Amino acid sequence: MVDSLLARRRESLSPSYRLFYDDPLRPVRGEGVYLFEANGKACLDAYNNVVPAGHCHPRIVAAVAEQSAKLNTHTRYLHQTILDYADALLATFPVGLNRATFTCTGSEANDLAIRLARYVTGGTGIIVTENAYHGVSAATADISPSLGEAAPLGSHVRTVPAPTPGVDFTVGVDSAIKDLQRHGIKPALLVVDTIFSSDGVFADPPGFLAPAVETIHKAGGLFLADEVQPGFGRTGHTMWGFSRHGLVPDMVSLGKPMGNGYPAAGLVTQSHIIDEFGKNIRYFNTFGGNPVAMAAALETLRVIQDEKLMDNASTTGVYLMAELRARPSIQAVRGAGLFIGAELTDGALAARVVNNMRARGVLISSAGPAGNVLKIRPPLIFNREHADILLTALDGALADG
Amino acid sequence: MVDSLLARRRESLSPSYRLFYDDPLRPVRGEGVYLFEANGKACLDAYNNVVPAGHCHPRIVAAVAEQSAKLNTHTRYLHQTILDYADALLATFPVGLNRATFTCTGSEANDLAIRLARYVTGGTGIIVTENAYHGVSAATADISPSLGEAAPLGSHVRTVPAPTPGVDFTVGVDSAIKDLQRHGIKPALLVVDTIFSSDGVFADPPGFLAPAVETIHKAGGLFLADEVQPGFGRTGHTMWGFSRHGLVPDMVSLGKPMGNGYPAAGLVTQSHIIDEFGKNIRYFNTFGGNPVAMAAALETLRVIQDEKLMDNASTTGVYLMAELRARPSIQAVRGAGLFIGAELTDGALAARVVNNMRARGVLISSAGPAGNVLKIRPPLIFNREHADILLTALDGALADG
Repeated sequence: MVDSLLARRRESLSPSYRLFYDDPLRPVRGEGVYLFEANGKACLDAYNNVVPAGHCHPRIVAAVAEQSAKLNTHTRYLHQTILDYADALLATFPVGLNRATFTCTGSEANDLAIRLARYVTGGTGIIVTENAYHGVSAATADISPSLGEAAPLGSHVRTVPAPTPGVDFTVGVDSAIKDLQRHGIKPALLVVDTIFSSDGVFADPPGFLAPAVETIHKAGGLFLADEVQPGFGRTGHTMWGFSRHGLVPDMVSLGKPMGNGYPAAGLVTQSHIIDEFGKNIRYFNTFGGNPVAMAAALETLRVIQDEKLMDNASTTGVYLMAELRARPSIQAVRGAGLFIGAELTDGALAARVVNNMRARGVLISSAGPAGNVLKIRPPLIFNREHADILLTALDGALADG
Repeated sequence: MVDSLLARRRESLSPSYRLFYDDPLRPVRGEGVYLFEANGKACLDAYNNVVPAGHCHPRIVAAVAEQSAKLNTHTRYLHQTILDYADALLATFPVGLNRATFTCTGSEANDLAIRLARYVTGGTGIIVTENAYHGVSAATADISPSLGEAAPLGSHVRTVPAPTPGVDFTVGVDSAIKDLQRHGIKPALLVVDTIFSSDGVFADPPGFLAPAVETIHKAGGLFLADEVQPGFGRTGHTMWGFSRHGLVPDMVSLGKPMGNGYPAAGLVTQSHIIDEFGKNIRYFNTFGGNPVAMAAALETLRVIQDEKLMDNASTTGVYLMAELRARPSIQAVRGAGLFIGAELTDGALAARVVNNMRARGVLISSAGPAGNVLKIRPPLIFNREHADILLTALDGALADG
């Protein structure tokens, strides 16, 4: 069956599709932290951040079903749920971040931020980290070096070293600004994933981002916090990754976990960033902010709050990171809450461990330019018991070699 | 209540949001061809192409609810529904168009087509019509003159006159190619909405597009048929707007009606266009092609086929266009199936008629660079009885002045 699905994919889909694992997963059902394969095998999901509340959370499934049966239109008509959601969402942000625009994907949110940065600053220069990923649209692929050499960076793009230990991130940003200016390109935007996921997960020390943001501001550019991966409580004590750094971004992009699987994303900005653009240029995203997306997102946010998933992310994250640090074969453990990177000696080993764990029924992936960092990013309902299952599988997977 | 919703929109959303109608609609329920307002008023929907099967079609609502409760993951795992849908979808296309890539929005589909055209041709030049609309991402806004003067076109973009009566569309394309070349820009792509919606709806004579496509091919560029608006049977006898022109595009973008409201879109290409790109560059769209989107899209396509909605679009469209042509105050009636443009003398009159009809409980909009073309684009279940209600309201709205 797997073979026939593989053959059908080759026949009908673009080869740009990639599969996880040497033995691809074929889930047919999801519940909580588990995905169930066609053969009945249960896999502990320690990877999918798209379902912060767990797979098929009954409250969110019901919200989607109910609103789908009632009404699904668009933002050129008045509807209350988009406003209820915008208010609930904006209440989680620092004062000043007070305008929401809804899209369908994180790529679209980052893409809109690029349009805004160009409009507001009059510049085009964009600074990202060396192995950043910010999306698949033309403008966001242009600033996503992790897509590989076949996808060229824009000539207006500069990369800076990720904030690995010993690297002063601000120095990199400052020299990228100077290099842009030397080439006659006005700096418009510094954008970082605030957990630096594709760079290998870098969270510490909290606060290191603040001076880099000051530096881009002094050069006339804006700062976009890409919260598509770290956002919505994943980093534990704070709802947003940037909050750990004691700063207020000009723009914040949201995506993956927003609707617990229903396509929903958005951009939150300071009003002075978007008001002039918005008066002069309409932005209509057919499905973005539609009543079903907003019902899904509102219920997801409520579940995150009602079930105290941020507290759980903190508690489980602290436990899991301590246990990982006790494993001598792990070189370094980094992260915050339930976004954890565990560094191994090399990428080949990490790939084997990821596949070995899949065989043992636990789903993770790897990250970093060398692919040597185990990426552990489970639904936020992941508890100590689940962490123990993961650790047992990891010990086995490391022993398997 | 409407006032308080308006105030809340101003407070929390970007001003880039626009509303339809002087008296904004506030729907709370949808069923078939009707939207119901909070005050109980029923409005005949002759505008929303996003719901080809009608609002809240029970089969599609059930498909979304059922799959949402079972599993919602992504394309890095194997799943059968994406393949069942890809096969059902590709079967509606001419031989040669045999690779599907799924996105969440039509903007993303067009944006991917731009990336592909650049990759395949090595060029960057893009040709669109004078009032084209192809999306809201940076790369698609660059080629969307209908967004207005505040949103600048790219320096690599050339516009050609829409195929109004007396205009030879191919001549425009040919001179745009020459102008690009004169500026050292290699032509990469001709893209048209195959019903020329934002230009004012131009469908006839069938076949006029074919020589323009030949012309861009001779210059080394590709042709993208933007079927986000005309696609999925709206034009009546053919599933795709390009089919009326007797040609096979290199790429076809899909969107709005694909999931009957569930966010789903995609790009269908000839394999030689995408295979090399796909081998070298991954394209992962987190929500694109997910099991729920595919369940919604598959059921939508089945409903279009089972309920013979293309036949209905033809029959109702022929009747409605004949009746519209019999109205002396309408200058011209253009279209195919249930995509109809009815030209009035000026945009101010059209705006009054659109608002008068909304007051009379029938929803339409306007299009064209002067806004003087009534845009009639109802769900494909719209029948003769609905058409008569629309015509009565139109006569009243025209009499209201």
